[in-house]
Amino acid sequence: MSDPDAMALGERADTMIRTLGSISAEPNRLIRQFLTPEHRAAADLVAKWMRAAKLDVSEDALGTVHGHWAGTGKKRLLIGSHIDTVIDGGMFDGPFGVVAGILAAEHFASAGRKLGFGIAVLAFGDEEGVRFPATLASSMACAGTFDATRLDMADKDGVTLRDAVVQYGKNPDDIAAAAYTRDVAAAYVEVHIEQGPVLEYKSQPLGVVTAIAGQSYLNVEFLGEAGHAGTVPMMLRRDALAGSAEVILLAEKLARETKGEVVATVGQLRIPAAASNVIPGNVALIVDIRSGSDAARQQFVDQLKTEIRAVASRRELGLTITQTRDVATTPCDSVLQDGIANAIRAVGGEPLHLASGAGHDGTAMARLCPIAMMFVRCRGGISHNPAEYASPADMGLAVAALIRFIETAKL
Amino acid sequence: MSDPDAMALGERADTMIRTLGSISAEPNRLIRQFLTPEHRAAADLVAKWMRAAKLDVSEDALGTVHGHWAGTGKKRLLIGSHIDTVIDGGMFDGPFGVVAGILAAEHFASAGRKLGFGIAVLAFGDEEGVRFPATLASSMACAGTFDATRLDMADKDGVTLRDAVVQYGKNPDDIAAAAYTRDVAAAYVEVHIEQGPVLEYKSQPLGVVTAIAGQSYLNVEFLGEAGHAGTVPMMLRRDALAGSAEVILLAEKLARETKGEVVATVGQLRIPAAASNVIPGNVALIVDIRSGSDAARQQFVDQLKTEIRAVASRRELGLTITQTRDVATTPCDSVLQDGIANAIRAVGGEPLHLASGAGHDGTAMARLCPIAMMFVRCRGGISHNPAEYASPADMGLAVAALIRFIETAKL
Repeated sequence: MSDPDAMALGERADTMIRTLGSISAEPNRLIRQFLTPEHRAAADLVAKWMRAAKLDVSEDALGTVHGHWAGTGKKRLLIGSHIDTVIDGGMFDGPFGVVAGILAAEHFASAGRKLGFGIAVLAFGDEEGVRFPATLASSMACAGTFDATRLDMADKDGVTLRDAVVQYGKNPDDIAAAAYTRDVAAAYVEVHIEQGPVLEYKSQPLGVVTAIAGQSYLNVEFLGEAGHAGTVPMMLRRDALAGSAEVILLAEKLARETKGEVVATVGQLRIPAAASNVIPGNVALIVDIRSGSDAARQQFVDQLKTEIRAVASRRELGLTITQTRDVATTPCDSVLQDGIANAIRAVGGEPLHLASGAGHDGTAMARLCPIAMMFVRCRGGISHNPAEYASPADMGLAVAALIRFIETAKL
Repeated sequence: MSDPDAMALGERADTMIRTLGSISAEPNRLIRQFLTPEHRAAADLVAKWMRAAKLDVSEDALGTVHGHWAGTGKKRLLIGSHIDTVIDGGMFDGPFGVVAGILAAEHFASAGRKLGFGIAVLAFGDEEGVRFPATLASSMACAGTFDATRLDMADKDGVTLRDAVVQYGKNPDDIAAAAYTRDVAAAYVEVHIEQGPVLEYKSQPLGVVTAIAGQSYLNVEFLGEAGHAGTVPMMLRRDALAGSAEVILLAEKLARETKGEVVATVGQLRIPAAASNVIPGNVALIVDIRSGSDAARQQFVDQLKTEIRAVASRRELGLTITQTRDVATTPCDSVLQDGIANAIRAVGGEPLHLASGAGHDGTAMARLCPIAMMFVRCRGGISHNPAEYASPADMGLAVAALIRFIETAKL
């Protein structure tokens, strides 16, 4: 088996991604939602590629395309990512991981040499969660954790997941059969664009993901007193927006103090009945808090809550804090992380360890088996945007490193 | 002429205000806009009251009701306020000043004793500026500064001021004739609820207005970089909302440092494309800055601009600052202020001097003659709201003080 030609693999990946990227619900922006005609067309293209790579292709009841290559034992390394997109998304988020899996599997399948474990390349269709209220249905089905009550969830047109499955030509009763068993699924690995600027900032093409970050949402609402902007003296004001401004800066300051362990963002802030000449009496905002460490996230949440209460007390503002989300961190397996790191070194990179702030199918797959992820540098950290871009050179290195990882993996 | 019975005057004022407050475009909230059927009905009621008070009643081409009582000379003291309201407004903002003028004029007219000057009570109809894009048309007409190009301004239904005047049964060509001449208009005095909490806070029923505050609007827009709330490290962010939070707190801090000379408010803040999991790339806000001193306001604007530029520079944010409003302060005449202060003392109050942060018809009348204003305590500082309230006792003291002011005025 010859050493992989990284540059050639990168060029192939780029061509495949662009072909897949032309499949969209609209001509001028990329939209591929779960169980739609676009999903069908993309899945057919992926299946064609898998067959060309000498993989055995099947499709489960939620439309996930499975490309299998048998090993000498029953164990399999699962390699996957997703082919659905956000609305007006980029071509690389998801598809590159599927393409990387196919190209890596092809490297072994074409050589005809058996490994101690088989490979299953998985192309999921419900990672972005755009169509239905919940997400990761396809990877949950493969992990054996799909909850059948989700079949009653409807999209914005009132089509339930059950109806969508049937319209896709599948039988909802077959979803349970998509699950891999624990004796088969030895590990799950995903290659993905970083969707952030760290690798670019550190001038490294590839990174090792330590964990998929846990997430908390704090919905904060201040109730002060609306008043005339010209007639109420500063010292008699109970300004809900000024209190909110303190929260925004507190969240930023506390997150900076964690030196990378926690990120916190206020992306949404609402002033009901806002007018330029009225002191805001009521403001609601959401703090999005993420960390690769649940302990660090919890400590941050507790500290921020304490400081927000102090702001409300000092400013005599009514306060409601509601924690609307509390998702635990999904750690990546340390042995697999070492394998990814060694593979990155083997192709000339310096493996940078970083947590994934975004969610991924790995969160679902971690309920089935150990997981790992490799990140690929993307331009400007831009994602969920038509400007999303990873270079053929970087993608080639990623596929070569994935091949190296597979060669050296002990599953 | 007997001493006025303040309590009886307050009860009468309260009854009159409630009667006027029942005239509305809608049954469940108070709406009286300029040159509407409600304006007509309110003006007719005011004219009836003026006639009962033995005043000579006329109406000018912009619907202002004039109630005249002759003096021994040609000079007149103008006493006025407005009978239009904001949408869902209160009953006291404006009407109390008209009612106070009528009750005070009646005190002298009924006694039959002539003063050295006459009295003109004016009920304006365009102080709130709700119907047309500009405001104070009626007081500008009386001050002789009405600009005829305003006749082409249209309301939201496309009705121009010219059409509205004609529909009200008047001739736009007669507007110029509404103007008082400088040899007649000796002074303009207005009694108004404070619309702020200072008198209540200081436990005083009445206050002397030093000036109608000047006003600046700074429209501030930050351009940072939108990004994924989970994937962009704190140190690599260019968060437009965090920059805006600094501006909100800076405006507050700088205004507090002026110890009452300047008030500053951010009442409106917009995050286009806001989402809880996206770092805001673009935020626009408006800072409303008011002061009784133009120099203090200008110094504040300059200092705030400098500090905002420093925020933008430190955070590497794009910045646009546009000054969309720059209205000069209207000072109240110091001799008239002394007269108002002495009158307040005479009825048992301790005259508190304060600037009016809100605009008033006095701004227009100051182009014609010296002006003064007396403020009356209102509950909780609440105004432009159905909960607006001034007590009969306080209103009675205000009318008694206005009578005292007239008795002792040297015009």
